[in-house]
Amino acid sequence: MLGLMQNHPLLISTLIDFAARYHGDTQVVSRRVEGDIHRYTWADVQRRAKQVAAGLDALGLQAGERVGTLAWNGYRHLELYYGVSGSERVLHTINPRLLPEQIAWIVNHAEDQALYFDLSFLPIVQGVHAQCKTVKHWVALCDEQRLPKDSGIPGLMSYETWLARQSTDYEWPVFDENTASGMCYTSGTTGNPRGALYSHRSTVLHAYGTALPDVMNLSARDAALPVVPMFHVNAWGMPYSMALVGCKVVFPGPALDGKSVYELMESEGVTFAAGVPTVWQMLLGHMGPNKLRFSTLKRTVIGGSAAPPAMINTFRDDYGVEVLHAWGMTEMSPLGTLCTLKQKHLALSEAEQLRLRVKQGRAIYGIDMKIVDADGDELPWGTGVSGDLYVRGPWVLAKYYKGEGGDPLRGGWFPTGDVAIIDADGFMQITDRSKDVIKSGGEWISSIDIENIAMAHPAVAMAACIGVFHPKWDERPVVVVVKKPGQEVTREELLAFYEGKVAKWQTPDDVIFVDSIPLGGTGKMLKTRLREQLKDYKLPG
Amino acid sequence: MLGLMQNHPLLISTLIDFAARYHGDTQVVSRRVEGDIHRYTWADVQRRAKQVAAGLDALGLQAGERVGTLAWNGYRHLELYYGVSGSERVLHTINPRLLPEQIAWIVNHAEDQALYFDLSFLPIVQGVHAQCKTVKHWVALCDEQRLPKDSGIPGLMSYETWLARQSTDYEWPVFDENTASGMCYTSGTTGNPRGALYSHRSTVLHAYGTALPDVMNLSARDAALPVVPMFHVNAWGMPYSMALVGCKVVFPGPALDGKSVYELMESEGVTFAAGVPTVWQMLLGHMGPNKLRFSTLKRTVIGGSAAPPAMINTFRDDYGVEVLHAWGMTEMSPLGTLCTLKQKHLALSEAEQLRLRVKQGRAIYGIDMKIVDADGDELPWGTGVSGDLYVRGPWVLAKYYKGEGGDPLRGGWFPTGDVAIIDADGFMQITDRSKDVIKSGGEWISSIDIENIAMAHPAVAMAACIGVFHPKWDERPVVVVVKKPGQEVTREELLAFYEGKVAKWQTPDDVIFVDSIPLGGTGKMLKTRLREQLKDYKLPG
Repeated sequence: MLGLMQNHPLLISTLIDFAARYHGDTQVVSRRVEGDIHRYTWADVQRRAKQVAAGLDALGLQAGERVGTLAWNGYRHLELYYGVSGSERVLHTINPRLLPEQIAWIVNHAEDQALYFDLSFLPIVQGVHAQCKTVKHWVALCDEQRLPKDSGIPGLMSYETWLARQSTDYEWPVFDENTASGMCYTSGTTGNPRGALYSHRSTVLHAYGTALPDVMNLSARDAALPVVPMFHVNAWGMPYSMALVGCKVVFPGPALDGKSVYELMESEGVTFAAGVPTVWQMLLGHMGPNKLRFSTLKRTVIGGSAAPPAMINTFRDDYGVEVLHAWGMTEMSPLGTLCTLKQKHLALSEAEQLRLRVKQGRAIYGIDMKIVDADGDELPWGTGVSGDLYVRGPWVLAKYYKGEGGDPLRGGWFPTGDVAIIDADGFMQITDRSKDVIKSGGEWISSIDIENIAMAHPAVAMAACIGVFHPKWDERPVVVVVKKPGQEVTREELLAFYEGKVAKWQTPDDVIFVDSIPLGGTGKMLKTRLREQLKDYKLPG
Repeated sequence: MLGLMQNHPLLISTLIDFAARYHGDTQVVSRRVEGDIHRYTWADVQRRAKQVAAGLDALGLQAGERVGTLAWNGYRHLELYYGVSGSERVLHTINPRLLPEQIAWIVNHAEDQALYFDLSFLPIVQGVHAQCKTVKHWVALCDEQRLPKDSGIPGLMSYETWLARQSTDYEWPVFDENTASGMCYTSGTTGNPRGALYSHRSTVLHAYGTALPDVMNLSARDAALPVVPMFHVNAWGMPYSMALVGCKVVFPGPALDGKSVYELMESEGVTFAAGVPTVWQMLLGHMGPNKLRFSTLKRTVIGGSAAPPAMINTFRDDYGVEVLHAWGMTEMSPLGTLCTLKQKHLALSEAEQLRLRVKQGRAIYGIDMKIVDADGDELPWGTGVSGDLYVRGPWVLAKYYKGEGGDPLRGGWFPTGDVAIIDADGFMQITDRSKDVIKSGGEWISSIDIENIAMAHPAVAMAACIGVFHPKWDERPVVVVVKKPGQEVTREELLAFYEGKVAKWQTPDDVIFVDSIPLGGTGKMLKTRLREQLKDYKLPG
């Protein structure tokens, strides 16, 4: 027997309609590529998003067709988020930090029909447009005056000129909530990038889940600053969750240096910010020497890669800001866990609480997770034993776009490729990537543990641990190190540095000093490429 | 084109599975009908809810069949919430405060197959069981020892004995999320009660929406006390939202007096409580004279009827507790709005903030609302003009059970029967019930406004304002008053009390003193019955 409640599909358009109706005069503030500060409201976002939708109709784009963006976090990008998805097209956010050939590959694979880009990325577009065979419309996110002349890009339009021609009377279509709404390609450290194709349902449920008090804790009392990029994993869903709660929005645009971010936080009264550790490192690096304080910032979510404990402590002790550790991935919309304490933990000492805070945290309702052994059998929690981390839920990927890579699921669960420990309270901690774990004599060695120790040495700027073939132990760890400018450390000194920090058999067999370690488009170390570079390397002895 | 995310229906069983898996040792504490305190965990709730499900299988109950409950807020009732709905049956919570003939009528209309009841309600069941034609199984929520002998109820079973026979290995079925999960009858001040039939989807979305920071703000750091009854409108969805966040749960059982509630709050470290104004009046009435303070309580949600401003102030100023005003109805699962301020209001003075806090508040994402005039045309906000309040959304009723009363919707919107004002910021304030508004000479007079003024007179215990036929003005207000014991006030004194508080034409034409005003099962004044009682009354002059 079915219930007798109203049938309203979970559509992204209902988020912007809600924000415009109930928080119409709440501000959306953007630092622009043009350099100035732009200020308008949720009602304005809705009005212009409807113009985007009407404009896509006018361009002849069909339901389900993909629209690419190469853009910073700003109001025009937000209009595209709602205008494209709300009108039943698919928003394809492209990471401009990828190599040009990857960008062209992705655009062609997604079969983007139109591409909208910030002027910062004009050189990229100029470099790739000839290879992007499906793109019929190129639109620069600027007014007519700033539109580059003789760009070489066929039919290049100014967004503002295009938008001004469109009606604001557009009515959002109503359709199946499982319809595709957006796509994002994985960074693809091995093989070709693969596309995750989000739905309206997965996006709205993710927005509900991530706004909860134990997650981002977003409310209409917040002024939220997403530093995490809208060009990758949808800025952790904040373009949606911020509308769901109707908070003030502050977009940093391209200015992610410590000084710019700090000034924006202070001038706009930011209470909540989200970003990767690198950005906060730059922010703290600016604030410390200048003896600056936060006037309004209360909490920050850190994800993308593990937040160093020292950073968590500095935010908390020196600045009174709560740091929340988060974990997720492109295939998870992206948030899976967030590290907020339970009631029983509030009585713990600061040191004991920090031991929890460095973990990636607890599952949000909507996500289920487990760790499994090599046979795929579930491992118990609270034993300290790590296993492959599997997840499932309504905002977890079922298949990649066009079925690339076949069926990724194992019995309905998505293997994340991470190795993790889960404690008795359900707090998960990533210990490694599956493909980076070093299997030595039947035991696992966490490459992240080995790297963290090297990174703690004052002379080390970056460290990557990889496994190298060994006739007896199968694999042995070696650590590849970039020294800090002007600093020195020898192989022997660094190996001695491991004493007492890990078991003897976990200590690397060798140290390899290099000038740089290859990084991917999202700032992660490309160990695959590193292994290629070192393919002729042999272990000593 | 559909997205490629996993398909997981929003089922109530996933809430209890989540709470048991990620918050398994978090406590669920109940004051029992037996008088003692019972203490167990979310993992125990899951285990016993599965036994309930297995037991319903053993009783031969089919998917979709209704299971009635007459029970206080306690752990066994919670087990039924999950065991009944999780196994695809429909939980029918029955309000024991209804008249026995109404209870029998509802049980027959719902065609309940089994009825579970707390021993407090044994006399009710003894009175009605012979009229309940569909009920095959009667279960008392107690152990064998406390099971009444010679109750006269055929085949009466002890819940604990029945449960102990069931397996804990039960696997929740997976089915369409639009399947019916629960039902609740409206109190039915006119005509027969009508059943709202909730679905798994509406219930889970309501749980997401109501746990948000701007609504109940529920987290795993809370110890939550639902005083609002689980026997009516699902305790505002808290049995579901508390599992969604994995907070500590504290159930008051039948002991709702100020002393009992206060002691439970203090002994269990309650941080959040929800209830109707009457309960808080009793609590404050106990605390004031005894000079008691809250050690842990941070905030309370008040709904069901309007919270008097004085109560909001007392909680805030004397006890440091934030009061959140809420509004909803059976047909809305039940929450529609909650009164939390926006960022721009935080700079207002306390007095200005209080003017907002007395309103019923802003819509939760998932609910849309509008006010309409007599022709059903939408009225603008922020003008001070009131209109009939309409709502829509995925947790709003589409039809009553068995289609009673025909199609209740108007163009897809549910007419709430309330009259309201909505300000420019989307804050809604109920000014009256549609059927209680007095239409005098083409203008509307709010019966609630007239009652509130009378209630502010020190000699008045209760006041009801109704419209009486007038040959020239169509209707004129009269106020029906119950005096406080030992207090006196005359007709002329009370009419004079209105001077300067409302316009002359809004002042009642008469005062009628009575010994009591009829109240319905949920404590609301039954103005229909009052009008019947006064049908021979004529206006003076």
